[in-house]
Amino acid sequence: MLKIDDPDVLREVTEASDRYEAALMANDVDTLDVLFRDAPETLRYGVGENLYGFSEIAEFRKTRTGGSPQRDVIRRVITTYGPDMATVNLEFRRKGGSRTGRQSQTWLRTDEGWRIVTAHVSLMEAFS
Amino acid sequence: MLKIDDPDVLREVTEASDRYEAALMANDVDTLDVLFRDAPETLRYGVGENLYGFSEIAEFRKTRTGGSPQRDVIRRVITTYGPDMATVNLEFRRKGGSRTGRQSQTWLRTDEGWRIVTAHVSLMEAFS
Repeated sequence: MLKIDDPDVLREVTEASDRYEAALMANDVDTLDVLFRDAPETLRYGVGENLYGFSEIAEFRKTRTGGSPQRDVIRRVITTYGPDMATVNLEFRRKGGSRTGRQSQTWLRTDEGWRIVTAHVSLMEAFS
Repeated sequence: MLKIDDPDVLREVTEASDRYEAALMANDVDTLDVLFRDAPETLRYGVGENLYGFSEIAEFRKTRTGGSPQRDVIRRVITTYGPDMATVNLEFRRKGGSRTGRQSQTWLRTDEGWRIVTAHVSLMEAFS
């Protein structure tokens, strides 16, 4: 089975995740675009939208006035599977918000570096 | 870079995803447990709960009266990355529900077969 949490891979993905969070908070759309893999398979389920393919994601970013709401990351779990794949999961709280947010990403090592291939962001409900 | 959507791998993961959906609808807790990797890294963000580690997920299943609400899968995208990793993303509608549900899973090939390592389930909001 693939080696889990190799320290070098873990460090790389942690850096990529940090870079993503900083870009999200700065609404640095260019960096956000770079960090998603430019491919039709790439997919992002957002809080209020389902986006299929890199083009839909990039279009959404461009038209999202002010970018993502500011947020604090409460807990983050990064796990790497072999040298080329990783998952990043985190809980967040939006400034002034009361609900717990969750962000899940799967990352792939590409020839250009680590890229997000799927993402899912949501706000937790008070029920199941 | 890892080979994407090898037909044999895609078929295996599609079967695993079908098996998961059938078990979810039947509230076949044993099969649901089998399909999640039994490891502390395994993680599941549900509609109304954040579960860290296989034990928390198994405990949640056991105490979820009646299991998951019945649902129809509206759209599903399965993508495989190399021989050992895959993502399954789908939209669903709960019976009698009006909101669009989303389920994201990352699967890993283990010595025992394909297993879910992270999952995220949510209901889409009317806002971002």
